[in-house]
Amino acid sequence: MKVLLNGGVARHGIDIVSQRFGDRISLRQTAETDAAWTMAENMKWAEVLISVDCGPEMPQAPNLKLFLVPASGLDAIDLETVPAAAAICNVYEHEIEIAEYTFNGMLEWVADLARRNTAFNGGDWTGTPSMVGETRGELAGLTIGCLSYGNIGRAVARRALAFDMKVLALTQNPRPLDPEPAFMGGYDNLPKILGAVDFLVICCPLSERTRGIIVAAELAAMKSSAVVINVARGHIADEATLFAALRDGVIGGGILDTWYHYPSPDNATIRPSTKPYHELDNVLMTPHISGWSQGQQRRRWAKTGNNIEALMTGHESINIIRPAQP
Amino acid sequence: MKVLLNGGVARHGIDIVSQRFGDRISLRQTAETDAAWTMAENMKWAEVLISVDCGPEMPQAPNLKLFLVPASGLDAIDLETVPAAAAICNVYEHEIEIAEYTFNGMLEWVADLARRNTAFNGGDWTGTPSMVGETRGELAGLTIGCLSYGNIGRAVARRALAFDMKVLALTQNPRPLDPEPAFMGGYDNLPKILGAVDFLVICCPLSERTRGIIVAAELAAMKSSAVVINVARGHIADEATLFAALRDGVIGGGILDTWYHYPSPDNATIRPSTKPYHELDNVLMTPHISGWSQGQQRRRWAKTGNNIEALMTGHESINIIRPAQP
Repeated sequence: MKVLLNGGVARHGIDIVSQRFGDRISLRQTAETDAAWTMAENMKWAEVLISVDCGPEMPQAPNLKLFLVPASGLDAIDLETVPAAAAICNVYEHEIEIAEYTFNGMLEWVADLARRNTAFNGGDWTGTPSMVGETRGELAGLTIGCLSYGNIGRAVARRALAFDMKVLALTQNPRPLDPEPAFMGGYDNLPKILGAVDFLVICCPLSERTRGIIVAAELAAMKSSAVVINVARGHIADEATLFAALRDGVIGGGILDTWYHYPSPDNATIRPSTKPYHELDNVLMTPHISGWSQGQQRRRWAKTGNNIEALMTGHESINIIRPAQP
Repeated sequence: MKVLLNGGVARHGIDIVSQRFGDRISLRQTAETDAAWTMAENMKWAEVLISVDCGPEMPQAPNLKLFLVPASGLDAIDLETVPAAAAICNVYEHEIEIAEYTFNGMLEWVADLARRNTAFNGGDWTGTPSMVGETRGELAGLTIGCLSYGNIGRAVARRALAFDMKVLALTQNPRPLDPEPAFMGGYDNLPKILGAVDFLVICCPLSERTRGIIVAAELAAMKSSAVVINVARGHIADEATLFAALRDGVIGGGILDTWYHYPSPDNATIRPSTKPYHELDNVLMTPHISGWSQGQQRRRWAKTGNNIEALMTGHESINIIRPAQP
């Protein structure tokens, strides 16, 4: 079986795949510096392509049987450009660390450990009870809204219930799901829950339905203390409107991991937004790391490997996004 | 009913008590600047004393019926010096925010959100998946040891189970307790669990049994990646030994909220240890804030008020540490 790894995220798995399959497969990887003819030759060669992106610029892959996305988001893949003969599969396995990131962010928001650590390192006892300092907040009793209730939303909810939080969930297809939230409804119920949530966790796929679903009216409907957490895709919340709401105190804060602009080899230091989010002190911002953990990589490459194995042994793939067309 | 509030922690509740009881009680408070005769007069006057400390220096309180500690720790109270006619009661209600602090610390340890935020604020994309940066750790799958399994240990455990962690618990009096840990034993089982834990949460009272229970041999028995979390009292872990273990990499890190030295009006900038813990970059240190939240204050003063109410109406007190002696 001829397996081609394309791009940095795919290449990150090369050792795991290589160790698992040894000489049962042939492995190649692309490099950003590859000449066009090298890329064309590799794509002609490949029976399995592992990549997080694919577009019209990709050369023909006449032998491709399986396109494996070693990630969950498909927004960098133009499905039309993947040969019809190849099935397309993705992987999830990121709900654990995204839920953990969400709690790290929320706890940091209410309990402010890192800031207190920095101050105390410098010898500042401010806030110690005997000096009757500022008390911290608690998550217990607060309400979290999950904008979509798939693997991530439910992993967040399971932890939220153990933290004595109230969970409100929206999902495209409301149905009984575990754990049971205090409220569940379709996306059209967004206006109904916005005023009630202390944290809104955006964890839905980016789609025509969700692009810009959080704009000025939604933000204005939230509590002025509410925090927007985006672990999905930047463009689900409108870039300029979210910035203005944070800057003007329309909402209380943001825990933002996903962005509007990303670095490329040509522009490795691009700011994540044309708006100066980094100047706001009510924003905790990170470079799209919420779903990037050792555990996730271990789990994702195990599933990705299972799909290679399935193809080699004539079994059915898992997580098929689009079946191979005859 | 004549109620005297002594010290900063007690005075912090004056508004809540005053609003609840209005002119049903008389309220006085001490000040650090009070003359000795004022203190003596107030103590003679008091029927209820609310204070987190009491020692031989306290003037006689011949009318005292109830000594209310608006905190859980009794180590600053010399029980012998409290008039025999007065019952002594404390309050807990801190398990929620201490458990939340513990998770804030553990998540910061594995996911490092605050550091990543600071770097990204400065424009640093390091670690973003497309640049195949360092992956984060996860709590899921790790093991947490609770040194004592009372209100705090069990609040930590309930959250840990939702985070897919394994819980090992030690308690002075092993018995079925909810949630059920994977292992429960007496304090003498400490050597048995030390090698297995990724996080050791010290959450037991300071007593002759627990003072210095964590010394060199215990630390040496732990994984070199293990983290000691102290939300109880500094002296449960030996000051110099813990410092050396952290400095020399015997253990991986410390999340330390409780200390060996505390500020006083005379020495408000004292360092929390004679050892330079603040120079260690594997220590997250805070000024005894883990149990200091708005919610805790609301809950503690509700319970403290209930005990005043009980005395006024002839009902029994809750959380009696030592009954009134006839």
